Amino acid sequence: MKATVIRKTHFNCAHRLNVAEWSKEQNKEYFGLCNNDNYHGHNYDLEVSVKGEIDPLTGYVYDLGKLQTILNEEVISKFDHKNLNLDTEEFATLNPSAENIAYVIWNKLRDRIAEQFEITVKLYETERNIVIFDGK
Amino acid sequence: MKATVIRKTHFNCAHRLNVAEWSKEQNKEYFGLCNNDNYHGHNYDLEVSVKGEIDPLTGYVYDLGKLQTILNEEVISKFDHKNLNLDTEEFATLNPSAENIAYVIWNKLRDRIAEQFEITVKLYETERNIVIFDGK
Amino acid sequence: MKATVIRKTHFNCAHRLNVAEWSKEQNKEYFGLCNNDNYHGHNYDLEVSVKGEIDPLTGYVYDLGKLQTILNEEVISKFDHKNLNLDTEEFATLNPSAENIAYVIWNKLRDRIAEQFEITVKLYETERNIVIFDGK
Amino acid sequence: MKATVIRKTHFNCAHRLNVAEWSKEQNKEYFGLCNNDNYHGHNYDLEVSVKGEIDPLTGYVYDLGKLQTILNEEVISKFDHKNLNLDTEEFATLNPSAENIAYVIWNKLRDRIAEQFEITVKLYETERNIVIFDGK
Amino acid sequence: MKATVIRKTHFNCAHRLNVAEWSKEQNKEYFGLCNNDNYHGHNYDLEVSVKGEIDPLTGYVYDLGKLQTILNEEVISKFDHKNLNLDTEEFATLNPSAENIAYVIWNKLRDRIAEQFEITVKLYETERNIVIFDGK
Amino acid sequence: MKATVIRKTHFNCAHRLNVAEWSKEQNKEYFGLCNNDNYHGHNYDLEVSVKGEIDPLTGYVYDLGKLQTILNEEVISKFDHKNLNLDTEEFATLNPSAENIAYVIWNKLRDRIAEQFEITVKLYETERNIVIFDGK
Repeated sequence: MKATVIRKTHFNCAHRLNVAEWSKEQNKEYFGLCNNDNYHGHNYDLEVSVKGEIDPLTGYVYDLGKLQTILNEEVISKFDHKNLNLDTEEFATLNPSAENIAYVIWNKLRDRIAEQFEITVKLYETERNIVIFDGK
Repeated sequence: MKATVIRKTHFNCAHRLNVAEWSKEQNKEYFGLCNNDNYHGHNYDLEVSVKGEIDPLTGYVYDLGKLQTILNEEVISKFDHKNLNLDTEEFATLNPSAENIAYVIWNKLRDRIAEQFEITVKLYETERNIVIFDGK
Repeated sequence: MKATVIRKTHFNCAHRLNVAEWSKEQNKEYFGLCNNDNYHGHNYDLEVSVKGEIDPLTGYVYDLGKLQTILNEEVISKFDHKNLNLDTEEFATLNPSAENIAYVIWNKLRDRIAEQFEITVKLYETERNIVIFDGK
Repeated sequence: MKATVIRKTHFNCAHRLNVAEWSKEQNKEYFGLCNNDNYHGHNYDLEVSVKGEIDPLTGYVYDLGKLQTILNEEVISKFDHKNLNLDTEEFATLNPSAENIAYVIWNKLRDRIAEQFEITVKLYETERNIVIFDGK
Repeated sequence: MKATVIRKTHFNCAHRLNVAEWSKEQNKEYFGLCNNDNYHGHNYDLEVSVKGEIDPLTGYVYDLGKLQTILNEEVISKFDHKNLNLDTEEFATLNPSAENIAYVIWNKLRDRIAEQFEITVKLYETERNIVIFDGK
Repeated sequence: MKATVIRKTHFNCAHRLNVAEWSKEQNKEYFGLCNNDNYHGHNYDLEVSVKGEIDPLTGYVYDLGKLQTILNEEVISKFDHKNLNLDTEEFATLNPSAENIAYVIWNKLRDRIAEQFEITVKLYETERNIVIFDGK
């Protein structure tokens, strides 16, 4: 009997969308204000879902305190109050679109959470712009 | 490698739920206050999901600015600050239930967004009454 | 020792902004989409604040259950799922702007709540358009 | 042609997480503050999804007023303003984790809603801790 | 030149409203479900406002990190995941109404924050029931 | 008869808190993560209140469409998707704390809105960190 548990957390970053292979004009046209030379920023809200069997003894699928610890180690300590383009290895060459941030976070969590659990990452770049990545 | 991107927007309408084939009494009994002769209204919040491959160059699934433009043309300009029953062709005979509004919006978007993208429409009639339509 | 207690409730209406003394063109220009002939609508969120002495025995300023009862009788039963312009006496000639709706609600509550309590009405026409009226 | 309709409601409870088979120390270590001897509490927000065919005449999948009545009878009247461990049969021996509460609610609804409708229960224990159960 | 800074935090408690001087019947009648013998509970959201001069050098009124530390020490560590009636000295005899909780928190903060700052406490017992206390 | 009307809007920025007169160590100690060399960022939510007489003819205090136009010209076009420290004159030397951003916005609005209206600026740097400035 499976259930999904979800933990919501958040981090704040500067970033800039830019494709190195493109000219300045191409980038301005494609990414608009998000290409601003000196970066802009967001409060990212992150919802991580873990789906698995309900333990019949504890009634837990996955300890959300433990999940928050993993999120602190893998996401918050690395990205919070950072410039994604300049301060992180992950986005040194990868464009920090919401899709790519969700993809990177999903892979970090996949390495830390046992395979019997399905993982989904939902990332709110703003209240109006949201991305979901589940590795499928 | 697929991800889902979501854009949230909103529009405000008057509407009335009524089945032309039914008597006044049947309508009052079935739809209650929503059958009020002179209409009532809602702030509709709309979340549109588009699922597809992440472009390896841009890191985008679908440009959310472009999606908002389509939403402005297909939904906002047609429904915002309108009476759905009286001011729109779509609901001249179709009952403007949240389910039918979501269905109509989904079909409008399906005509504008390429087939390789899966579309889901989530419509909040109120914070407490919500509908999802994905064409399946 | 005074405190303020707040109760949040909601109602859904159709309405139309229009000044009878003005021409059709003047109304269109001033009220824009809100002047739509066939009405549009909103989910109104209402927060009513009551400020007064904390009763030393009960720890209550004002029973919020009682306040909700008054709100049901004075506001919800009269305005919810109605057309403010057509279905209510209060807005038969008074333009149902958010300011005027807040003013009308404040006066109804002032008649029902003892004078030693200060009343403030906060009305959300949308999440982005909000009005406060406190009788001062 | 299927759609999903969602109704959001809420209830407030005291509860305590504890496994009877474990020692006091094991329980403190595993459940932390949630094991507090004298209980703690939550405002639970509940979203119930019902998926089914859109009725071509009414435009409804399932009457949300009827769904709210079922929720009042099966959930609100039994759990609201109660101590889940002491005041309910359901959690007299079952640990009232969010997963188990969602599971119990899902089963109660499954008994009341016809089989052609798929049911999903989403329970917010807090804004940050959420559980989904769909019987699969 | 003064500004107000606000920090939002939260804690979860069990509680029960009851007046010791009253009979069981009087308490049931006055407090209704909130008088449940075995307690119920809430997710309390707390907004603390501090008003004072903007420091011309730092641009800060009051360091919100420092304010959170005070909130952790004075509120979260004492009330979070507790039964207010049974586990705290503050509400051993004082009825834990939202008004009284706000009053108690305000006094704790008043002792820790210098007199040149005005303090206001806003406490959300639920999204619909809110209290403000500012010591005036 | 006065009422207050409120318009909510938003903008996204990169920024860094730093006092030029202080050493690197002093800045790190005082501002913590907010001092990150390469900036971080936020989704700023902005609520502007305008208090004045209700026009007896229109029922308006201040046209919120006009207020949004002023906000677009004075705030959004200047700050949205910008680096406050590097891309704006306003914060070239002034530390872009939430207090100072609110102060700067208030002054810009004060220049555009007639003196008979009182203005209050409420700025959400995050959901948990909020500032109010009203020029008093």
